[in-house]
Amino acid sequence: MFSTDQKSEIDAARADWAQTRRTVVPAVEEALYEPQPVLGTGFVRLVDYMGGDEAIVQGARVSYGRGTRSTSDDRGLIRYLMRHRHTSPFELAVAKFHVRAPIFVTRQWFRHRTASINEYSARYSVLEKEFYFPRPEDIAHQSASNKQGRGDSLPPDAAQHVLDLLREDATRCYDHYLEMLNQDEEGNVVDPDRPVVARELARMTLPVNVMTQFYWQLNLWNLLHFLRLRADAHAQYEIRAYADTILNLVERWVPLTYEAFRDYMQEAALLSGPALRALRDVLAGREVDLQASGLSKREVTDLIGLLPEIAPRLGR
Amino acid sequence: MFSTDQKSEIDAARADWAQTRRTVVPAVEEALYEPQPVLGTGFVRLVDYMGGDEAIVQGARVSYGRGTRSTSDDRGLIRYLMRHRHTSPFELAVAKFHVRAPIFVTRQWFRHRTASINEYSARYSVLEKEFYFPRPEDIAHQSASNKQGRGDSLPPDAAQHVLDLLREDATRCYDHYLEMLNQDEEGNVVDPDRPVVARELARMTLPVNVMTQFYWQLNLWNLLHFLRLRADAHAQYEIRAYADTILNLVERWVPLTYEAFRDYMQEAALLSGPALRALRDVLAGREVDLQASGLSKREVTDLIGLLPEIAPRLGR
Amino acid sequence: MFSTDQKSEIDAARADWAQTRRTVVPAVEEALYEPQPVLGTGFVRLVDYMGGDEAIVQGARVSYGRGTRSTSDDRGLIRYLMRHRHTSPFELAVAKFHVRAPIFVTRQWFRHRTASINEYSARYSVLEKEFYFPRPEDIAHQSASNKQGRGDSLPPDAAQHVLDLLREDATRCYDHYLEMLNQDEEGNVVDPDRPVVARELARMTLPVNVMTQFYWQLNLWNLLHFLRLRADAHAQYEIRAYADTILNLVERWVPLTYEAFRDYMQEAALLSGPALRALRDVLAGREVDLQASGLSKREVTDLIGLLPEIAPRLGR
Amino acid sequence: MFSTDQKSEIDAARADWAQTRRTVVPAVEEALYEPQPVLGTGFVRLVDYMGGDEAIVQGARVSYGRGTRSTSDDRGLIRYLMRHRHTSPFELAVAKFHVRAPIFVTRQWFRHRTASINEYSARYSVLEKEFYFPRPEDIAHQSASNKQGRGDSLPPDAAQHVLDLLREDATRCYDHYLEMLNQDEEGNVVDPDRPVVARELARMTLPVNVMTQFYWQLNLWNLLHFLRLRADAHAQYEIRAYADTILNLVERWVPLTYEAFRDYMQEAALLSGPALRALRDVLAGREVDLQASGLSKREVTDLIGLLPEIAPRLGR
Repeated sequence: MFSTDQKSEIDAARADWAQTRRTVVPAVEEALYEPQPVLGTGFVRLVDYMGGDEAIVQGARVSYGRGTRSTSDDRGLIRYLMRHRHTSPFELAVAKFHVRAPIFVTRQWFRHRTASINEYSARYSVLEKEFYFPRPEDIAHQSASNKQGRGDSLPPDAAQHVLDLLREDATRCYDHYLEMLNQDEEGNVVDPDRPVVARELARMTLPVNVMTQFYWQLNLWNLLHFLRLRADAHAQYEIRAYADTILNLVERWVPLTYEAFRDYMQEAALLSGPALRALRDVLAGREVDLQASGLSKREVTDLIGLLPEIAPRLGR
Repeated sequence: MFSTDQKSEIDAARADWAQTRRTVVPAVEEALYEPQPVLGTGFVRLVDYMGGDEAIVQGARVSYGRGTRSTSDDRGLIRYLMRHRHTSPFELAVAKFHVRAPIFVTRQWFRHRTASINEYSARYSVLEKEFYFPRPEDIAHQSASNKQGRGDSLPPDAAQHVLDLLREDATRCYDHYLEMLNQDEEGNVVDPDRPVVARELARMTLPVNVMTQFYWQLNLWNLLHFLRLRADAHAQYEIRAYADTILNLVERWVPLTYEAFRDYMQEAALLSGPALRALRDVLAGREVDLQASGLSKREVTDLIGLLPEIAPRLGR
Repeated sequence: MFSTDQKSEIDAARADWAQTRRTVVPAVEEALYEPQPVLGTGFVRLVDYMGGDEAIVQGARVSYGRGTRSTSDDRGLIRYLMRHRHTSPFELAVAKFHVRAPIFVTRQWFRHRTASINEYSARYSVLEKEFYFPRPEDIAHQSASNKQGRGDSLPPDAAQHVLDLLREDATRCYDHYLEMLNQDEEGNVVDPDRPVVARELARMTLPVNVMTQFYWQLNLWNLLHFLRLRADAHAQYEIRAYADTILNLVERWVPLTYEAFRDYMQEAALLSGPALRALRDVLAGREVDLQASGLSKREVTDLIGLLPEIAPRLGR
Repeated sequence: MFSTDQKSEIDAARADWAQTRRTVVPAVEEALYEPQPVLGTGFVRLVDYMGGDEAIVQGARVSYGRGTRSTSDDRGLIRYLMRHRHTSPFELAVAKFHVRAPIFVTRQWFRHRTASINEYSARYSVLEKEFYFPRPEDIAHQSASNKQGRGDSLPPDAAQHVLDLLREDATRCYDHYLEMLNQDEEGNVVDPDRPVVARELARMTLPVNVMTQFYWQLNLWNLLHFLRLRADAHAQYEIRAYADTILNLVERWVPLTYEAFRDYMQEAALLSGPALRALRDVLAGREVDLQASGLSKREVTDLIGLLPEIAPRLGR
């Protein structure tokens, strides 16, 4: 996955310690620069960070002047800020990652516009022969219930056939890519008498499961927003694998914020006006008239998914 | 390029006129909804707009109170705003486009983060069998001087060979895509006993020259910024083709702003501190010591590119 | 509130109709350009809009390809998009307002960064003698329970005293402002032998209840986000007055979106992971151990505020 | 300017060193947390940073793959990136400041929307009795040539009169503020039988030269953009004083970037298409027909301001 050069660069960076007056989070220093493998040959590396739980509290207290300092501890304040979506203090912490991921994953990823991105350029450089191929158990049927999801895994031989097609396409397209570039896998010219097609043109034949790389930096609030959407069962499995890895790094970096995120964002649910009114009826022992409630069938199903114990209390 | 249904939808939209109190720009109403072909099967359609030159002037004058109304006409004010990069008034006009473009073009396009985008989802829907294939004369050598550009066209037979490779890959990958989806080109199930692989998985074998579609909306200032970068010789030819088409629509929509854009952004050049000092020396008839000037070789070349008449006046 | 000139400009704009192919919303054309009074001498005017419920649906369907058109009607789709926070289609509608408001209100207002703003410049122009003075019944005690809110109204004579102080300060400061500018209220020079202090300096003596004006433009999603925070009981009364006025215009413009906003944003509530678990216990008839629930006292209070019927079911 | 408590908090922060694997810039560690006075009682403190020149280069090289590492050194690469406005790598460095400034300055400051801000809340807390009063020599006439600028200083006695007015207004308004809050300057209740007006109401009588505080965080590119506009002769003197102080911190933090900023942004000038054509005529010894050149009078004046040596070569 990494060349010897890359490995020694990472080791050198990890071996290099210096003194700073800034907030330091030892648990995350431990992980710094270390690649966390994702989807086989993909990875996420945390390459820099600024701030931590403590800095969030400090930032928040610019607007919590005289007299508040004693009354609320850091954990309480962070939970309060999260609960009430006071986002500014969380924006004051920043993280920077180095990521290798398939192009189709980055296309979902970069729809989050509030980040700074520097991507490896296929106009400037030759893309490596690295592709994403799912594990057989991750190759699944189109979901019957969810128009944009996947259902059960395919039988092993059908999964193997899909893998064969993916590998065949990747191999042949990459061969053609090199042929247009007139170079071999080591980057040597194959035939000095043949033309070298522009990289920006040749790359157009590569499939979207080819790997690309990028630096990605954003503030903690935007990162949590990304994680809520992407470390979620509705997200495509492949981007979720990255999000889960990042979430694990976030837990080491800002443990109090992570805990508040879990309670108030990840495990929380939004109940609509009509759903709240139905719930009040149930709690008061009143009969719920679903027809008149304003709840669609889908919303009733979702409500039962969230609060299974309510099912027998809902009329027809 | 369009189905009969799509054509009649476009015709119906164009036939539907209504009364409004808002700013109306007749020249752009003429073009509304009409697809402008780009790169063969790609297109750009302007599907909505808000404001115009007149609205920019009105917006600007909130901050140009009593007494200014008489002294500057619209054209002068727009040129003044553009020259001094007073961007807020230009932000008050908005345009919305519907675009069909290859994925590798959208990857450059969506790096512009200050726009609203709604893209056709390959998780939800099946991508059409539409690919971008360059015209033979657009297939070119890697540039020798510019690491991320293309040089001269390939000889015809070499270009044809590249096209053959591109077509072969596109065809084979799309066939495999349909095979995984277990459907034919009309969307019929091929074999009811075979599994349908999830669309979000099957699409990963498609090359980046497959066509996608999206709605794209942004304010005029961000649009001009996009056009300055993408309707430019340094941009890849393929995205430039889209930018040129959009620029033509902008000219019809906001002719005064377009003219100011051309003079003060597109044809303008930034001269560095060292370049300005060298230029003053030349104008004063003083000898220019390039060594001491702080200009790199590349900058000297660029300066001569910009002002060819300066070449004989620069010493060595 | 308006000069004769301003009134005739507004009337002229309202009298000017033209033909367009764009989406037109008659109910909002009716209100276009018309000032809606807020806080006495403040106002909100809708001065332009783009799109409507119909355009949101069209935009969404770029990513809802073949076959979906028949299955969901516009209302259902808009409610689905809102419920699942699919924000992109709502970003495709845009509104532009002209607002007059006190500076302290604009300071809260402009914290919303995703809008385009063009404000009247107090460096370039002289600010009018317009201030916000609360109605006596809006002058209230500092809230005992809410560190950043207000409680009950003051007794009439105490309120009158506050108003006297506010009026005295506004009058004296504005007099000094004009004195520094060496002009009278009509803009005439008072004493040609005295200096005119720079406007950018003189204005620094004006209190933050002086009125300013600005153009404000943003997409519908960002507008709804603003309204959820500012047309809310936690917002300061003064900005809420503006938000309520804007909400009323939104209802006329995009009635289906408005209704979905009300049900899924304004009247909805986020229940935390711990709150959902406590609720499941209650619904199942299990005893709730508040100590072990992870809910703080404040959260319990909030939960009871939301679902009063739950109170007797929560143990101690 | 600072209480004893605040001073010891700053000292404690500065005394606290720890080990990190991240990029450390010793010159800026030296300045960390230390308040830099601005406008008398205002200040800027750098309270955190991420990255440095080295990290910018690293970030850029994700997209500058194999083979580039040897050919360009850090300085050259940074200058290249700046010259060509490749902004992404500069976005990968971040700085966080703590600022105390008058409200009228923050109103200009916060128009820059691409930053994270946490401001001291006057709803939640009582504002301190700190105002900005210009030095006598900074009190100036309205500029005759520039509608939004200031000209020469006022004569000493006229300046003194302005200062007297400003001090009188600030003092009286602040007295009324405390009177409404029913507290003295130490925060003690004055009369337990009188009401305490809500802070969010009482503050509306304070003039815009009262001091506020905020945390301000943004990436280096957005910071440089801010500095180009605000550390500039066209900016109001008061915000320029802050920008100059920040620029000095930037020079210590990222010296190579600072130098490139100076050459390619601060001292650079944009020449329009018509100006470039006139310049080519002059360099070629051709006569310039100003009428036909497309240059307005104002542009000719600006061009001469930039290149004084051109004046005798321009015809009439």
